Amino acid sequence: MTSSLKFTLEHQIQDAQGVGRARAGRVKLAGSQGISHEILTPVFMPVGTAGTVKGITTDELTKMNAQIILGNTYHLYLRPGHQRVERLGELHKFMAWNGPILTDSGGFQVFSLAGLNKIDDDGVTFQSHIDGSSHRFTPELSMEIQKALGSDIVMAFDECPPYPASPEVVQAAMRRTVKWAERGLQVPLKSHQARFGIIQGGLYENLRVQSAQEIGALPFDGFALGGLSIGETPELMQKMAYFSAPLLPRDKPRYLMGVGRPEDLVEGVRAGIDMFDCVMPTRNARNGQLFTSRGKINIKNAKFADSPEPLDPDCPCETCTRYSRAYLRHLFISKELLSARLNTIHNLSYYIRLMAQMREAILKNSFDEWAETFYRNQRSDVR
Amino acid sequence: MTSSLKFTLEHQIQDAQGVGRARAGRVKLAGSQGISHEILTPVFMPVGTAGTVKGITTDELTKMNAQIILGNTYHLYLRPGHQRVERLGELHKFMAWNGPILTDSGGFQVFSLAGLNKIDDDGVTFQSHIDGSSHRFTPELSMEIQKALGSDIVMAFDECPPYPASPEVVQAAMRRTVKWAERGLQVPLKSHQARFGIIQGGLYENLRVQSAQEIGALPFDGFALGGLSIGETPELMQKMAYFSAPLLPRDKPRYLMGVGRPEDLVEGVRAGIDMFDCVMPTRNARNGQLFTSRGKINIKNAKFADSPEPLDPDCPCETCTRYSRAYLRHLFISKELLSARLNTIHNLSYYIRLMAQMREAILKNSFDEWAETFYRNQRSDVR
Repeated sequence: MTSSLKFTLEHQIQDAQGVGRARAGRVKLAGSQGISHEILTPVFMPVGTAGTVKGITTDELTKMNAQIILGNTYHLYLRPGHQRVERLGELHKFMAWNGPILTDSGGFQVFSLAGLNKIDDDGVTFQSHIDGSSHRFTPELSMEIQKALGSDIVMAFDECPPYPASPEVVQAAMRRTVKWAERGLQVPLKSHQARFGIIQGGLYENLRVQSAQEIGALPFDGFALGGLSIGETPELMQKMAYFSAPLLPRDKPRYLMGVGRPEDLVEGVRAGIDMFDCVMPTRNARNGQLFTSRGKINIKNAKFADSPEPLDPDCPCETCTRYSRAYLRHLFISKELLSARLNTIHNLSYYIRLMAQMREAILKNSFDEWAETFYRNQRSDVR
Repeated sequence: MTSSLKFTLEHQIQDAQGVGRARAGRVKLAGSQGISHEILTPVFMPVGTAGTVKGITTDELTKMNAQIILGNTYHLYLRPGHQRVERLGELHKFMAWNGPILTDSGGFQVFSLAGLNKIDDDGVTFQSHIDGSSHRFTPELSMEIQKALGSDIVMAFDECPPYPASPEVVQAAMRRTVKWAERGLQVPLKSHQARFGIIQGGLYENLRVQSAQEIGALPFDGFALGGLSIGETPELMQKMAYFSAPLLPRDKPRYLMGVGRPEDLVEGVRAGIDMFDCVMPTRNARNGQLFTSRGKINIKNAKFADSPEPLDPDCPCETCTRYSRAYLRHLFISKELLSARLNTIHNLSYYIRLMAQMREAILKNSFDEWAETFYRNQRSDVR
């Protein structure tokens, strides 16, 4: 299994208690077309739900230095169908993306997005959010779907209990997640595909410890923290990530699923996480909320109507170098298609540059200083 | 006035009666930023209604060899406001397009798109389609708006009667259009701006003759056929364009407004028209209707679900070289933002290449043969 993924830890910062924290590393992936990939961590993965990062092309992803993107098993299974994608040459070819792809397991979506779902020890029966049709995912089928898609990193099928949930409910989900992880490992994948296990345990430290021990002992190529950023406060999420990160094997990539805001990425990296994904930069872009080096902007705001300034003067992206805030506001107010696109290009560029800056700070052993400057700039208020 | 536009007729094909028909030429424009433009005709102008060709960037327009685009006075006046656009550096800078821009006069929109309108000899009072607010356009204000926008070609403010309309109604509109043309000519523009007059006359040949004589005698830099493609059959439209084109001054560019389908462009060029604009390639792209060298495709069609083929094997555009019909269908069915964008890139590329092919055929004196092949290929049916 190790031939499909190789992780190199380049540098790790120790906290005051001597615990290894913020890390810079490299994830080498075998690649499906005989071309291997190397991902520099920490890394943010743009979300390409249904075979497209909404509104932008893969050329644009390359231009903004996106190193790896995420695809959603639940969505691609329902439409256009994983077998169809496989017939058409797998997901990379289908969507014209040559870089690595991580697919989630579909677990989170069947619990959060699908209609009425019924869970048992064998799997989950759910209704499609598109047409209400009935479907059933098992740990084995999740593997088969991801195998067909041909992604580079395959996630184990897990049970993600809602928040809040009692310790009993969370523990039951955690136990089931371990059994499902073991079952998924029995399904052979394509030779280039790596597998990640998922730690559950909600906001209960003892359960996180237990889950990390049990999942961490299985032969996965990397490990994710699941069940966070599902409704708890950002403070609780950050606290649990900080508690849990050191519980994960040091010599494998660590992935914090579904996180988050720029400050959550900073705190996740500080905790010792290597990989992140979130719909926030893309979804908020479509809603006119833009992240800049000086704080958040709502481009709808009337104060931008006459602004000839770039969105973020520190950003080298296409949106910031070619267009004014006044133009971006006009596009948003006029509900023009170009609005979502230009906003998405900026927000993703911002997230990706943020990760690159953190990596550089870690390698210089000056992460805390960098983070201090980051927070100070964020508070500098946008005119 | 001639310093802002210079038209060179390179080659014109004579019909059996010795009438000059299909033409290849060059339109030289002074340019607003000290950089002159040369447009090779016949030419299709993509429509950038509200400061953006819907869904695509000006870089993409450049890549597809768009030579000139159209902006809408009515839309830009209402939102973001022509004075704001001028303050922000005029329309070219606002939307980051360095090529030439033609602005329409707003006349067509106040009659067709705005709410209740009231027309008198002085101008038109109308309600905004956005918020119902009341506004008034006069020939003078239309010039002032287009002056503020800084477009390269300014259209005279005309009255476009609906179809069908009685000869009396059409004649009254035609007379008013002449008076309005004369009034507009009194308004000074920026030195780089050229002006086009608009011929009306509906589907009445005698009125077209009269309008062409009266408008044609005024010191415009080019002339347009208005009042076509507003509800009459394509056959009637083509017939009237064929009748009217030779009535326009031979030494000035001729523009057929709001036309049309690929076959309408072919027949317009055959008639002796140099310039065209239409929302069809962009609007239909968003609705999944795609134009190819082998005929029209509705990408929603289930028969494309598993097609690994490019949309149009003869097309060198980004959409055709990178993506399959199956992927384009998936994006459309899933209502993904990328669908409109990739479809628009293809349809506009198709229109622009079509014009380039016609120009080449004219220069080779083989337009009729080219047109025959075009129609044969269109009928070759898409699998």
